[in-house]
Parts: sequence; structure tokens; C-alpha cells
Amino acid sequence: MDPNLVEELKKMFSNDPFAKQLGIELIEFSPGYAKVRMKVENSHLNFFGFVHGGAIFSLLDQAFAAASNSHNYSSVAISMSVNFINAPKKEATLWAEAKEVDKSRKLGLYEMTVRDDEGALICRCDGRVYRIGKPFIGDGGA
Amino acid sequence: MDPNLVEELKKMFSNDPFAKQLGIELIEFSPGYAKVRMKVENSHLNFFGFVHGGAIFSLLDQAFAAASNSHNYSSVAISMSVNFINAPKKEATLWAEAKEVDKSRKLGLYEMTVRDDEGALICRCDGRVYRIGKPFIGDGGA
Amino acid sequence: MDPNLVEELKKMFSNDPFAKQLGIELIEFSPGYAKVRMKVENSHLNFFGFVHGGAIFSLLDQAFAAASNSHNYSSVAISMSVNFINAPKKEATLWAEAKEVDKSRKLGLYEMTVRDDEGALICRCDGRVYRIGKPFIGDGGA
Amino acid sequence: MDPNLVEELKKMFSNDPFAKQLGIELIEFSPGYAKVRMKVENSHLNFFGFVHGGAIFSLLDQAFAAASNSHNYSSVAISMSVNFINAPKKEATLWAEAKEVDKSRKLGLYEMTVRDDEGALICRCDGRVYRIGKPFIGDGGA
Repeated sequence: MDPNLVEELKKMFSNDPFAKQLGIELIEFSPGYAKVRMKVENSHLNFFGFVHGGAIFSLLDQAFAAASNSHNYSSVAISMSVNFINAPKKEATLWAEAKEVDKSRKLGLYEMTVRDDEGALICRCDGRVYRIGKPFIGDGGA
Repeated sequence: MDPNLVEELKKMFSNDPFAKQLGIELIEFSPGYAKVRMKVENSHLNFFGFVHGGAIFSLLDQAFAAASNSHNYSSVAISMSVNFINAPKKEATLWAEAKEVDKSRKLGLYEMTVRDDEGALICRCDGRVYRIGKPFIGDGGA
Repeated sequence: MDPNLVEELKKMFSNDPFAKQLGIELIEFSPGYAKVRMKVENSHLNFFGFVHGGAIFSLLDQAFAAASNSHNYSSVAISMSVNFINAPKKEATLWAEAKEVDKSRKLGLYEMTVRDDEGALICRCDGRVYRIGKPFIGDGGA
Repeated sequence: MDPNLVEELKKMFSNDPFAKQLGIELIEFSPGYAKVRMKVENSHLNFFGFVHGGAIFSLLDQAFAAASNSHNYSSVAISMSVNFINAPKKEATLWAEAKEVDKSRKLGLYEMTVRDDEGALICRCDGRVYRIGKPFIGDGGA
């Protein structure tokens, strides 16, 4: 894949209003892979004072979106299953990684994990996309 | 269940920093049930200009948290499976409902749906909780 | 849909080697819907003497396959999430129902439930199919 | 863990009526881990002539049951999410592996994969158990 296109896609995925509101940053990005980061703030907490499940999910969903659209073909999330394992600490920095498990012409499967800065596993997720198949930058990719 | 306790719980669940940041409001609440609402804002959009999956999930997760903690016993989400069906419009108001499907001493199962203001189904989710079993207000409930 | 085609499809789906081996019978069938039945036998039990999860899943999967292929277009299961709620009794007769929640040109979503003959909920499942789009009998359907 | 107890558990898990009916054999077994095998037979096929989803699920569920009960504490499957990736060939031998991802006093999370004899990924599954906490052989384990 053209490195310029990879750079252009990374820039596009970094410019995400919802991710920005939550403080989610795209750290690593390559075809089929993405790593994002979020430092836990008070605004991420729920009524019990723990990190909200929605904040954790949003982080991993951002990695999922970047990885599944990394081939410059529009992908739409259709099914996701999440298992929450450990509750993160309030002062944690969380990292989510998305890896491509399978990719066919119309479907894709991605594995996401969220870990804290000490490597503790916060949650796991498998996510399925349906690939609409239109390149969204230039003439397209894979 | 004591109506005063229901009112107290509703107040507590409404006071959720993450839900407030996203504009999520608790509209209806009773033991085993919750309905929440979120008007889509530009800050909920992703890099494609669609409503971010994390925003939709956060909405349903808020209904889930309220319904699963409605008996005044701490519940922790352990597994959630989501199916995304229709993409909401940018100017939509979204409604999420959570209903109790099953509750035992240590486990619970909840069904969540998200619909727009015209009733179109945006997504479905089944969520499992593990019930820690400590009342968090007063002497506790069911 | 032509009633003769519905009858032909029902006959085809009833002629399933794996379902036969397990004693699964197709009881009701119409476009987007199927109901199947299995009387628990000793051969369905696991090493603890309970009904094997695989036997329960196979029952609901048979309903899923019939309902999702009921439009005479090949559908392939891609994602399923199951929640087990109550363990069935050894002498139970189990019923699984599959209902169409959503259907687009290429995707479908189905809701499955398994109940015993007293109506107790044994498990719930959401299942996604990818629709290959080839009619498998005659000129095809919806 | 006492090697004699491991051996006794392996023997017990091998003596599973449903797994025997389907030709599923327990090949490897250790605390938190199990590998099982099934040679595809005509009796595993569905009405299309492909391997039935229920047969594939039963295989991985058998690995899951062995791994999650490997500590000699009763575990009950509560949530499973499966992603089907490639359809196995009719003459394939299928292998399912279950690995422990997390284990607490009352909960456990396991990752299952099914592969054919050439290593092609047939499906992936995450499974959650609730641990009842009673040893079923002697005085019990971890």
C-alpha cells in the first residue's frame, strides 16, 4: 500500500469528533492494524466512580474503525461481542489494539483488546464488519 | 420496592459524569427497567460523519447500567453482544431501553434496543451482569 | 411467496442429516420464521449428566438455518451470541424458535430462543447471516 | 495440581455421551487448557451438504467444557459468542482448542478456536463461565 495513502488515512481517522471529545488518540496505524490511547479523566467515570463501559468500548471501537477501514474500503461494524475482565483504575492510561483476523471481499473480522499501562487486560472484543467496497480516498486499495 | 428508594436510585443514576458529557438523560426508571435518551450532536460523529459506534453503545450501556443496578445491588457488566442494524441520521434523537430478561442471585441478563424517534431499530444488545450483592443505598433491596 | 415453494423448502430443511441424528424436527416454517423441537435423550447429555451445550445450540441453529434460508436465498451464519439461562431437565422436550429481526439485500439478523415444554427460557441467541444471494430452488425468491 | 487428579478428570471428560455420539475425542488436557478432535462424517452435514454449525459449535463447546472444569470446580457456561470464518471441507478433521484467558473466584473467560488439519481457521469463540465452586472429584482444586 502506498505510504502516502497510509499517512492520509491516518490523518483522516485522527480527525474524529467523538474520539477527540473523549481524548482518544491514534498512536499506531498500518493496514489491518491500529493502536489507540486514552488517559482516564473524571469525565469518563460512571455514577459509581468507575470508568464507564461506554468509554472503554468507545476506545476499542476507535481502534476497530481505524483497522477495519485501513484498506481504504468503507467498512461498517455489524456485530461486536465484548467481555469485560478487569475494571481500570481511575488514573490509568488505557490502550486499545485492533488486529485483523480475517478479511474477505465483503466481510472482515477483528480482535480488539484493551489494556492499562501496566498491561492488565481490561477487556476483549471480536468485531465483524461488512465491507461496502467503495474506496473513500482516491482510487482505493485492497 | 420503596418508592423513595427508587427515586433516590434514579437521582444517583442521573448523576453520571460520562453520560452527562454525552448528553444522555435517564427518562424512565423502575426495578428491572430503564429508558434513556440522547440527541445526536456533532460531537457524537465519527471521521465519516456518521454517529460513532461508541456513542450508540454508550447510550445503551447507560440504560443497561441503570436497569441492572435498579434493585440496589451492585451489578458489573461482564459480557455484551451488540448487533448494529441501521445507521442513525445525524439529526436524530436516539432512545435506548433496557429490560430484565433474567435475574438470579449472582447473575442477570438484560436486553437492550436503540431506536430513533421514528422507531427505526438502530441496534440490539444482550448484556450479562455479575451481581456483587452489596446494596449501595441503605440496607438494600431484592 | 408461492406456497408450493414454501412446502418444498420445508421438506428440504427437514432432510438434514445432523438434525436427524440429534432427533431435531422442523415443526413450523414460514418466510422469516421457524420452530423446531427435540426431545432430550441420554445421547444429548454431557459428562455431568446435564444436557450438552452443543445439543442446545444445535437445536437453535437448526431453527436459525431454516428461518434465514426461508426466502430461498442462501444465507451463511457469520456471528452468533448465545446466553444460557436455565439448564433443561433431562426428560424435557425443547423448542427453539427463530424470528427475523432484520433483512437487507446482503445481511440478516435473527433472534432465537429455546424453551422447555413448560415455557422456561433455556437460552437466547442473536444470529447474523451473510446472504450469498443465489436462489437454491428454481428461480428464487425475495 | 496432582497428576492423578488431572488424569481422573481427563477420563471423566472423555466419557461424555454427546461428544461420543459426534465422534469428538479429548486429545490434550491440562489445567486451563483442552484440545479436542472430530473427523467430519456424513452425519455432521446439514441440508446443504456443508458441516452443520451445530457440529462445529459442539466441538468447541467440548473443549470449552473440559478447560473450564479443569480445576475440579464446576463451571457453567453462561455466554458464548462465535464467529464463523471458513466453511470446513467435508472430509476434514477438525481441531478445537480452548485456552483460559481469565479466572477469578466466580468467573472465567476462555478463548476457543476451531481449525482444520491444514490450519485454516474455521471459527473463533469467546466463552464465559460462572464457577459454582464445588469440587466434583475428591476435595477439589484451585
